[in-house]
Amino acid sequence: MADSISFARGAPSLDIIDIEGLKASAAESFSEDPGGVTAYGTAGGYAPLRKWIADGHGVDVDQVIVTNGSMQADAFLFDALVQPGDAVVVERPTYDRTLLGLLERGADVKMIELEPDGIDTAALRAELEGGLRPRFAHIIPNFQNPAGYTLSQAKREELLALASEYDFLIFEDDPYIEIRFTGEPLPTMLSLDGADGGHVVYASSFSKTVCPGIRVGYLVGPSALIKEITTAATNTYISPDMVAQGIVYQFCMSGRIEESVKTVSAALADRVAALTAALDEHLPEAQYNAPEGGYFMWVELPEGTDVAALEQAAAERDVVFVKGEDFVIEGATNQLRLAYSGVTPAQISEGIERLADAYRSL
Amino acid sequence: MADSISFARGAPSLDIIDIEGLKASAAESFSEDPGGVTAYGTAGGYAPLRKWIADGHGVDVDQVIVTNGSMQADAFLFDALVQPGDAVVVERPTYDRTLLGLLERGADVKMIELEPDGIDTAALRAELEGGLRPRFAHIIPNFQNPAGYTLSQAKREELLALASEYDFLIFEDDPYIEIRFTGEPLPTMLSLDGADGGHVVYASSFSKTVCPGIRVGYLVGPSALIKEITTAATNTYISPDMVAQGIVYQFCMSGRIEESVKTVSAALADRVAALTAALDEHLPEAQYNAPEGGYFMWVELPEGTDVAALEQAAAERDVVFVKGEDFVIEGATNQLRLAYSGVTPAQISEGIERLADAYRSL
Repeated sequence: MADSISFARGAPSLDIIDIEGLKASAAESFSEDPGGVTAYGTAGGYAPLRKWIADGHGVDVDQVIVTNGSMQADAFLFDALVQPGDAVVVERPTYDRTLLGLLERGADVKMIELEPDGIDTAALRAELEGGLRPRFAHIIPNFQNPAGYTLSQAKREELLALASEYDFLIFEDDPYIEIRFTGEPLPTMLSLDGADGGHVVYASSFSKTVCPGIRVGYLVGPSALIKEITTAATNTYISPDMVAQGIVYQFCMSGRIEESVKTVSAALADRVAALTAALDEHLPEAQYNAPEGGYFMWVELPEGTDVAALEQAAAERDVVFVKGEDFVIEGATNQLRLAYSGVTPAQISEGIERLADAYRSL
Repeated sequence: MADSISFARGAPSLDIIDIEGLKASAAESFSEDPGGVTAYGTAGGYAPLRKWIADGHGVDVDQVIVTNGSMQADAFLFDALVQPGDAVVVERPTYDRTLLGLLERGADVKMIELEPDGIDTAALRAELEGGLRPRFAHIIPNFQNPAGYTLSQAKREELLALASEYDFLIFEDDPYIEIRFTGEPLPTMLSLDGADGGHVVYASSFSKTVCPGIRVGYLVGPSALIKEITTAATNTYISPDMVAQGIVYQFCMSGRIEESVKTVSAALADRVAALTAALDEHLPEAQYNAPEGGYFMWVELPEGTDVAALEQAAAERDVVFVKGEDFVIEGATNQLRLAYSGVTPAQISEGIERLADAYRSL
C-alpha cells in the first residue's frame, strides 16, 4: 500500500524543527537558571519569558500569562468569560477546537461569514444593530485556521470600532503571525487598540516557531482579566511547565527563533506553491485563495460535491484531510481544509494527484 | 535583617536536584526521539513514559494518563467525578489545594480525623453506617501533607473493604511514596485492590523525584474513567508537555531517578532529624510525630496557643510556616505545618530558635 499522505494535521514536519537548537537551549536553560526552571514557578509563567513576551508587545508584565500551550489559555479565557447562553461571535468557518470549547460551555455561537480579507464586518455590524450583544468576538487575523485568509487593516480598524461602540472584547487568536512568507505584515488589533484600549485579548503560541510538543502559549489582555485567569491557573496546576518555558526563553534570547521562523516560512512558501500548482494541474475544479502565510488552505469544490464521500474515497487512496463541515455548525459540505505544514512538496504533488483521482471517482 | 527562613513551601531546595542529570536527559531525549518530543502528542501523555508508568504499576497503558503536574490530574478527576452537593471524604487535616478544589466544585466535604497511623477508619465506618455516601475518599497514604503521617497496612485494607461495601472510590494521592527515609514501604491501595478491583484512582508525580518545575504527574485508574479524563485533556490542551515528559522518561530510563531518590531521601532524613532536635531543645511544648519520609511535619502547640498570632510574631523574626487552620474547614488553631524540604539543617536550627522566640513573645 502507498504511504499515507496527511493534509489533516496542522503541525510542522520534523525537518523544519531546530532539534540542535532545542538541545542547546535546554542545556543553556539548566546552566543559566537552574533554580528558576526546576522549582515551582508562578502561574503567570516563567518570569524571564513572560517579560520577553510583554516587552515584545509593549505591555506590562501583569498583562501576560504564559500557559501550557495556547489551547490551555483559550480554556481559561472561556471559563472566565463564557456563561451558558452568552452570545459569542466566531468566524465561519473557524477552528474546530474553538467551536467545541465554546459549545461545551453553552455559548450561543453566532458564526459570521469569513471573506478572503477577513470576517464580514458589514454583516457583523448589521447583527449588532439588530441587537446582538456578544461577550466577545473570536478572530484569527493572520492565515486563519481553517481558511488561510488574513484580516485586512481596514477590517481590523472596523472591528475595533465595533468593539468600542458595542462594548465587546475581541479575542485576537494569532498563533500564525510569524509565519508570513509573502506580503506585508499588518499591525495586531492589540497594538491598534493602544495601551488603554482594553478591547483586545490576544493569544499566541510558540508551537509554530519553536515546536508544538513544547506546549508554550500565552495570553495578553487587560490586567484584571489576566489576574483572574492567573488565579484559575494557580488553582488548576500551581504553575505551568518551567522547564519548557526556560527552553523557549533561551531559544528566543539566542536568536534561534528568528532562524527557525526563516526556515519554517521558506519551507511553507514552497509547500503552498506545490499545493496550488498541483491543484491547478490535477484538480482545476478546486477554488482557493492562496494564503500569504501559515499552515492551511481552504478549498471549495463545485456546488453539490459531497466532501464526506470524497473523504472516504481519498482515505481509500491513503490521503486524509479535514472536511469543511467540521469547522462550521452547519453547511460547508462542498469545502475542505488542506494543511500543507506537515508534508513535503513531493508528498503534496502525489497527495493532490490521489485526491483528484478520488474526486473523479465520485 | 536576618535571612528569611521558610518552613512554608513544600518544595525541595536546589542542592538536592540533579541539574546535570536533567541536562543530560534533555540532550538524550532530543537526540533519541526528536519527532516524539517536538510534535503534538496525545492527551494520554508521552507514550514511552506512559508505558514506563503502567509497567511500574502493573496496569494497562489505557489505565494511565500523564499530565502537566498531578494538580492538573486532580482537577480533571474532580471535574469528572464531582457534582455540586456530592459528598467527598477527606482527611482532617488535608492538603489545602485539594480542599479548595473540592469546595470550588461545590462538594459536600466531610473531614474525617487523621491519626498518626492514618485516617480514623472507625469514624469513617460510623459515618457510612449513618448514611454517608461519598463519591470518593481522598487519601494521602504516605507522609501525608500536611501531617507527615503514614496510613498503616491494616487501615489500607480496611479502607478498601469500606470502598467495596459502600461503593465509593478511593483517590490515593501518593506523590511522596518514593521519599521514604526510614521504616518499611507499604503496598499501595491500588496494588492491594488488584487488577479487577476498580476501587482506586491513584495519583503521583515526578515533582519530588525529578523536580517540581518539570510539571509531570499522572493518574492510574479504571480505563473508562481514564478515557473520560483523556477526552477532557484533549479538549483542554491537545496534549501535555512532550518535551518535559521526554526528559522525565530519560531521567527514569537512565537510572538517574534512583540516584535522585537516594540524594533527596538522605537529605530529608537529616533535615527531619535537625528539626526534631531543634524543637526538643528550643520549643519542648511542641508535640509531633516524626515522619518516616516526605516533606512535612505537623506540630501541635499547647491548647489555647494562638497560631495566627504566632505566625505574625514569627514573620517579624523572618520565619514563615503555614497555619494549621489552612488545612481544615474549622479549628486547628493551635497547630501548624512545618515543611523541612526546602531548608538546610543549619537553617532549620536557626529557624526553630526564632520560632521559639516568637512563641515566648506571645
